Amino acid sequence: MSDTPHFPLAAVVGADDLKLALCLAAIDPKIGGVLIEGPRGMAKSTLARGLADLLGTGQFVTLPLGATEERVVGTLDLDAALADGRAQFSPGILAKADGGVLYVDEVNLLADHLVDVLLDVAASGTNRVERDGISHQHAARFILIGTMNPEEGELRPQLLDRFGLNVALQSQPQPAERGQIIRRRLAFDSDPAGFVAEWEPTQHALRERCRQARERLAGIPLDDRALERISLRCFEAGVDGLRADLVWLRAARAHAAWRGDVAIDEADIEAVAEFALRHRRRTQPAPPAASQPPAPAPAGAPQEQHGQGQWGALPPRPAATGVRREVPSWPKKP
Amino acid sequence: MSDTPHFPLAAVVGADDLKLALCLAAIDPKIGGVLIEGPRGMAKSTLARGLADLLGTGQFVTLPLGATEERVVGTLDLDAALADGRAQFSPGILAKADGGVLYVDEVNLLADHLVDVLLDVAASGTNRVERDGISHQHAARFILIGTMNPEEGELRPQLLDRFGLNVALQSQPQPAERGQIIRRRLAFDSDPAGFVAEWEPTQHALRERCRQARERLAGIPLDDRALERISLRCFEAGVDGLRADLVWLRAARAHAAWRGDVAIDEADIEAVAEFALRHRRRTQPAPPAASQPPAPAPAGAPQEQHGQGQWGALPPRPAATGVRREVPSWPKKP
Amino acid sequence: MSDTPHFPLAAVVGADDLKLALCLAAIDPKIGGVLIEGPRGMAKSTLARGLADLLGTGQFVTLPLGATEERVVGTLDLDAALADGRAQFSPGILAKADGGVLYVDEVNLLADHLVDVLLDVAASGTNRVERDGISHQHAARFILIGTMNPEEGELRPQLLDRFGLNVALQSQPQPAERGQIIRRRLAFDSDPAGFVAEWEPTQHALRERCRQARERLAGIPLDDRALERISLRCFEAGVDGLRADLVWLRAARAHAAWRGDVAIDEADIEAVAEFALRHRRRTQPAPPAASQPPAPAPAGAPQEQHGQGQWGALPPRPAATGVRREVPSWPKKP
Amino acid sequence: MSDTPHFPLAAVVGADDLKLALCLAAIDPKIGGVLIEGPRGMAKSTLARGLADLLGTGQFVTLPLGATEERVVGTLDLDAALADGRAQFSPGILAKADGGVLYVDEVNLLADHLVDVLLDVAASGTNRVERDGISHQHAARFILIGTMNPEEGELRPQLLDRFGLNVALQSQPQPAERGQIIRRRLAFDSDPAGFVAEWEPTQHALRERCRQARERLAGIPLDDRALERISLRCFEAGVDGLRADLVWLRAARAHAAWRGDVAIDEADIEAVAEFALRHRRRTQPAPPAASQPPAPAPAGAPQEQHGQGQWGALPPRPAATGVRREVPSWPKKP
Amino acid sequence: MSDTPHFPLAAVVGADDLKLALCLAAIDPKIGGVLIEGPRGMAKSTLARGLADLLGTGQFVTLPLGATEERVVGTLDLDAALADGRAQFSPGILAKADGGVLYVDEVNLLADHLVDVLLDVAASGTNRVERDGISHQHAARFILIGTMNPEEGELRPQLLDRFGLNVALQSQPQPAERGQIIRRRLAFDSDPAGFVAEWEPTQHALRERCRQARERLAGIPLDDRALERISLRCFEAGVDGLRADLVWLRAARAHAAWRGDVAIDEADIEAVAEFALRHRRRTQPAPPAASQPPAPAPAGAPQEQHGQGQWGALPPRPAATGVRREVPSWPKKP
Amino acid sequence: MSDTPHFPLAAVVGADDLKLALCLAAIDPKIGGVLIEGPRGMAKSTLARGLADLLGTGQFVTLPLGATEERVVGTLDLDAALADGRAQFSPGILAKADGGVLYVDEVNLLADHLVDVLLDVAASGTNRVERDGISHQHAARFILIGTMNPEEGELRPQLLDRFGLNVALQSQPQPAERGQIIRRRLAFDSDPAGFVAEWEPTQHALRERCRQARERLAGIPLDDRALERISLRCFEAGVDGLRADLVWLRAARAHAAWRGDVAIDEADIEAVAEFALRHRRRTQPAPPAASQPPAPAPAGAPQEQHGQGQWGALPPRPAATGVRREVPSWPKKP
Repeated sequence: MSDTPHFPLAAVVGADDLKLALCLAAIDPKIGGVLIEGPRGMAKSTLARGLADLLGTGQFVTLPLGATEERVVGTLDLDAALADGRAQFSPGILAKADGGVLYVDEVNLLADHLVDVLLDVAASGTNRVERDGISHQHAARFILIGTMNPEEGELRPQLLDRFGLNVALQSQPQPAERGQIIRRRLAFDSDPAGFVAEWEPTQHALRERCRQARERLAGIPLDDRALERISLRCFEAGVDGLRADLVWLRAARAHAAWRGDVAIDEADIEAVAEFALRHRRRTQPAPPAASQPPAPAPAGAPQEQHGQGQWGALPPRPAATGVRREVPSWPKKP
Repeated sequence: MSDTPHFPLAAVVGADDLKLALCLAAIDPKIGGVLIEGPRGMAKSTLARGLADLLGTGQFVTLPLGATEERVVGTLDLDAALADGRAQFSPGILAKADGGVLYVDEVNLLADHLVDVLLDVAASGTNRVERDGISHQHAARFILIGTMNPEEGELRPQLLDRFGLNVALQSQPQPAERGQIIRRRLAFDSDPAGFVAEWEPTQHALRERCRQARERLAGIPLDDRALERISLRCFEAGVDGLRADLVWLRAARAHAAWRGDVAIDEADIEAVAEFALRHRRRTQPAPPAASQPPAPAPAGAPQEQHGQGQWGALPPRPAATGVRREVPSWPKKP
Repeated sequence: MSDTPHFPLAAVVGADDLKLALCLAAIDPKIGGVLIEGPRGMAKSTLARGLADLLGTGQFVTLPLGATEERVVGTLDLDAALADGRAQFSPGILAKADGGVLYVDEVNLLADHLVDVLLDVAASGTNRVERDGISHQHAARFILIGTMNPEEGELRPQLLDRFGLNVALQSQPQPAERGQIIRRRLAFDSDPAGFVAEWEPTQHALRERCRQARERLAGIPLDDRALERISLRCFEAGVDGLRADLVWLRAARAHAAWRGDVAIDEADIEAVAEFALRHRRRTQPAPPAASQPPAPAPAGAPQEQHGQGQWGALPPRPAATGVRREVPSWPKKP
Repeated sequence: MSDTPHFPLAAVVGADDLKLALCLAAIDPKIGGVLIEGPRGMAKSTLARGLADLLGTGQFVTLPLGATEERVVGTLDLDAALADGRAQFSPGILAKADGGVLYVDEVNLLADHLVDVLLDVAASGTNRVERDGISHQHAARFILIGTMNPEEGELRPQLLDRFGLNVALQSQPQPAERGQIIRRRLAFDSDPAGFVAEWEPTQHALRERCRQARERLAGIPLDDRALERISLRCFEAGVDGLRADLVWLRAARAHAAWRGDVAIDEADIEAVAEFALRHRRRTQPAPPAASQPPAPAPAGAPQEQHGQGQWGALPPRPAATGVRREVPSWPKKP
Repeated sequence: MSDTPHFPLAAVVGADDLKLALCLAAIDPKIGGVLIEGPRGMAKSTLARGLADLLGTGQFVTLPLGATEERVVGTLDLDAALADGRAQFSPGILAKADGGVLYVDEVNLLADHLVDVLLDVAASGTNRVERDGISHQHAARFILIGTMNPEEGELRPQLLDRFGLNVALQSQPQPAERGQIIRRRLAFDSDPAGFVAEWEPTQHALRERCRQARERLAGIPLDDRALERISLRCFEAGVDGLRADLVWLRAARAHAAWRGDVAIDEADIEAVAEFALRHRRRTQPAPPAASQPPAPAPAGAPQEQHGQGQWGALPPRPAATGVRREVPSWPKKP
Repeated sequence: MSDTPHFPLAAVVGADDLKLALCLAAIDPKIGGVLIEGPRGMAKSTLARGLADLLGTGQFVTLPLGATEERVVGTLDLDAALADGRAQFSPGILAKADGGVLYVDEVNLLADHLVDVLLDVAASGTNRVERDGISHQHAARFILIGTMNPEEGELRPQLLDRFGLNVALQSQPQPAERGQIIRRRLAFDSDPAGFVAEWEPTQHALRERCRQARERLAGIPLDDRALERISLRCFEAGVDGLRADLVWLRAARAHAAWRGDVAIDEADIEAVAEFALRHRRRTQPAPPAASQPPAPAPAGAPQEQHGQGQWGALPPRPAATGVRREVPSWPKKP
């Protein structure tokens, strides 16, 4: 599977906010995953898959359709335990995803208990399997990327909240942008290897920028001024709970690292605001135009930050989908 | 099964747009399958079955009723694996369909997870089966043809979008056309072999035309002017996502090849517009009369393009079914 | 089961249109089965059972309640296959029905996938069972007769359409007719063998008339004038699809054969109109009185065509149930 | 179970119409069973159980709660078949009920397919079990008695119709009648054997009257005048189908036999009218007072027909429950 | 379980009507069980458990949560039957409850078929298990006590009726009563054994009073005057069926025995009226104040009948919950 | 699992009422568990987990997602019983939780029968497993902590009532408080061990305060004046049942012990009022401002009771969510 070339994230046209969110998740995995919302046909999978390449290591693992919980967490063979004196663990999808990206397409259609498992393990970084008093645990540190088309069903609010960032893809890019997207796609489809080779320098720069940001991250303080501003904004936004504050602060720092800065700037805070607030908001957001200055354009490499035209040509346009509806009834756990 | 003679596509009366769509799918399988919508009694199966003969190779495989996922993807025999040192793969329906057509009647009534599997494999061209860490994969390149009677249930928008083209059959042909259709059917029913023999020249010409178009395809550029026009049209149509643009451009090129041309013409774009837009549109289409010039009549063979009267006697009449309704609730995956 | 005497169709009072429809299905099985609709208590089963005797050969097979798909199609024993070198097929209900009548009471309450199987096999005349790559097929040519009480649930439009003819039984015969029906029933119940013997001449004549009509059938052309008229009528009636035209033409020819004629007359067309249109119509039928001249009275034997009083005493009264309702939601296949 | 004394039917106070209906079913089992409707607390079971004693032979068999279809129809042991050369049949509840009464409490709550089986076997008098091509059949002639509380769910119209007679118990007897009922019940409860002994003469007379009526039955003609009158009444009542006519005529004859007469009288027809019409009527019945003269009081023995005061003290009061509601949706068969 | 001390019924504050109903059920088990309705938090279990101690013998058996039918009725081991020549019966919960109390918490949430089984066995006093023609039966005489919170779901009317008595607990005792209840509870919780010992004399007197009433019971006639009055009252109350009359008469006699009297007094009838009518009534009861004189205060022992203040300090206040609602739809039996 | 450091309860900012409720549950486990309600993102799990450390002994056990009843209660191995002469019990989650805290996240989504089991065992302190007449029981004394987001589904009233205390978390803390919470969280996340060490003195003081309160508890009388006041308040509040009184009195005493007092003060009663009333109230509470004086601020240690600013800086603000809605329908037990 790894030998098939994938469309490089650097070659994606538009979708700047999603690319930014994915980069931030690659810079600080503690942000807690990205939930990508959007209608059909937005190449959500292609974008998510592009993230794996930004991480230094690790695989891009897709949760297969109809995967059972056993297949996800792995299984403990107790018969082997009786014979050999120790239980034998047969690793599952979570084990494979360790150090990489776990990608869940249409996460809103997944059974709730599986989403619970994924989010629990993603949060703790440990997968623990227990059966008849025997247990096994292994590291399962991965970035969880989910996609959903909200037309086809919502996630429970509890589960929404546990995705660090949330990005809604614009459903209708402008004609010019559309054309450019299609041209790149056609180029890739007609000669995948060649296309990847052509974009390798830009993609390398992007990878490098992420790597440097990861190194720089620890040096940037999660300072009180930034936190104060974020908490005020969260309060004003009427978000449920406090995870928004925490995620926002981390994302702002990752953004500062991404910009190459040594401290969180006000612009960092604004640039990632919608990512942290979108799925936790109860009240309608104020018109975004005024309060959100254009985010610094993320680009394939820092030096291309201005004028490259490929990334950031369009300011992020938060899809103001309004108040999330209160869904009345959720199924019981089995 | 292959020894039973089938009604030749060339002998089908009317249904010009569907025949055209099927030919385009045969010319460029990357277009991504055709979803045929229409009420009962429109011989949807007969039309779809006719496509297989247009392909140079390959079988027409029907997804049997009530087929399980195992039967569709095939099974891995792990016991054999332990004994022989390697897993034994027992191929399923997808393996059979490789190189041909996979036909799914009433695809809207199929369980969602099966539709997912079909569309995933159709998109990637590879069927990958994995069990307990052992995996097997094989090529599964086929054209997916689905039919549905929308009165009996919708497909999820996500799944609709993944069918390349969508054609709605007219529910009520004119009396004269009806009579001609029935006459041919009766002729076939009373002497299938004789009927097939009688139509063999025309059918051969149609097959040949497709073959030549397939060869000509690579030489026709997916040019920027065409793409620009298509992207603008998609934007105006308010379609969800970008798959429409890609499919449209490919289909227009296939249409140029079908016409025997060396470049995409404006008429090619218009001729396939409805195929690409119909199932991705959100807003009501403008009255089709003005913006859609009559498509060039596809015929049994290029030289019969005008005056043959059998195909193209009637201009394509897009069934303006209006905005697709927003279906509120979809089932969870198992 | 075959030794129990059954009520002879010739002795049935009234229900002329249903008797006619059953005879036509016996004359030309390609018409495609009969769906009998009516409220409870109309002896639908007795009427359907009477059809078997009109066929030269073949059994009357009833689909047992709660029959599984395996029991319907038969089973392939693969273990035997491994041992003996060839799979052993254990035939099911479809095999039994070959050459005869397959009767399905309350077909509307049957699981959809079973109705699908029945209609597929009825249409192709072949039952094909496949398991793990091994397959077996056998002829399964039968006339499918289904009954339903529409008060208790509809069939999907797709499935309705695939029944050739549709007859609605009148729910409330006149008092005199009622009395006659009951008298015959009582006579049968008190002495089945004697009753059957008494009616044997009439029943024999009816059987003979069917036999002769079957022989005459091939000599009657499916002529263009008749087809033209039928297609116009179908168009006006706004039926879904084209199966109505085909079935109607065949049924009209069978009616001509039944009358002993050598060509399709206008009256033949009208006599079977409602049978072909009833379940395919979308718009309310015009008041039937004007457009439908009384059908020639079918009788026990041709020479009894007039004045016998037993059959045809009452003109066919189509139960104008109006537009079939659009049922909003159908279950998914398993 | 048979050694426990049961409350004698002769000792039941009131419920005259139900007692009458049960006696008629005992006199002519071809009438086809009795469906007893009524609210809770009307001792429906006690009444039904009393019927068994009126039959010359046979058991009172209760369908156990949650009985599976296998337990009802019996099972075929195919392994025994292979070993011994013939299948071994293990009889079920239907076999036990042969010659007696099969009692189904709350028949409306039973799964539809079980009700279907019961009614089919009750109608044909034969239980036929078939498995893998091997079959076994045995006589299963029984009177089917069902009870239902319509508040708790309806039967499908199709199934309702197949019960010969239908009686609705009055929900609220008058105080004096109530007292008498309770006194008898208390007497029975405090000394069952003594109570049964005390009522044995009356019960014996009732049994004897039924026996004589059964003998007399064949001599009473199902004459045309009676049938004419009944058919007219059925037509006026707008009942569904024709089973009402047949059942009514049989029941009227049984009533004549019960009265000791040699011909069906007008009063016989009226006495059983409501039994045959109640569950088949679509339109509201005319006020019963005028058209229904008091039924002859059935009594413990013919000579006690007048003045005994225990039976027939109250004229039958049909519970005018009005038009049966059209229930919109019924489950599919498995 | 039996070694854990339970809260003595004599020490319960208030809930006089429930205590009375439980005592009556202990005096005459033929009354047929008690259904206790009330909101959460009314110590329904504690009260029911207190009943066991009033019976001379027998256990208090609780139906465990999620008990299967097999566990309730016991199982027949047929394999043992084949080996040993006789079936081996493994007794279930019903066998344990023989001679005691069977307590079912939240009986309204129990599957209907289990409630059916419980009520059938409770009524007949015999549990009969049958499998494959082999059967076993054993005595199962117990008092069935059920509790339900009607907010959380109703019982089918049919099942409600089969509980002899029905008591609704007041949801909101007065402050003084509340305080007293809590004090006793705290005293019990802090020293169960001591509390039980302290109350043993009163509890002993209560037990003794029940024992004497049981002995006296047979000597009290179920006289006609009482029955006449009760039947009139039932008729006026418009109760469904006749079980109310029977239960009421028995309960009135038990109440007379409880009072130490030798005949049923008018006051006995009134004292238990609501117990018998409450769950069988269709029409709204008349304001209870006028027609229901205060019941004689039941007390720990007969001599403490007045002035003790612990029991009967508050007159029974029937919770006039009005007409039981007609629940439209009940599930089918499996 | 126990080696991973947890966030100390003493370091939690705000959530004073929940911290208080948890401390009270730790002081007197007979209070009966705490149900924590609140929207997503309120760190409910962190808070609950903090409780374990306040208990002298015992584990914090989490009910795993999708745990079966068998896994919860443990299993009896009967085969071992036959072989060894005694049943072998394999302990479940309840056994592990003995002496500690059993934490159930999203208890409202748990199947009802599991909630029943948990609450039964929590109330009795004993887990009793029984199978085929063999039984095993063990102590299972734990504090049950449940969380729920009421947006995602309610608990049945019956089950709600059985949680001793109920606390609703504020969904939107003030900006300053938010900031402080996040700062602590970040400090913990970046150096868990260091953070825990830093807070150890405060946490130790809190633990010590709980320990001393537990010792002091038995010496504080559950006096009549307090009970009188509480019962009056419960009556006024219109709570269902009497569990509120009992729980409130115990909680008030625990609060007095927590304050270091020797008797229940009026302030103790008010401080815990909302905890006991919230989930049992039917009528809207009076505006809380007037009747509820600020609770004494619980703090890390008694001497820090005033001025510490970390705990109690904000008065408890009961979330007046109004009358609990009457949910119409609850599922049946299996």
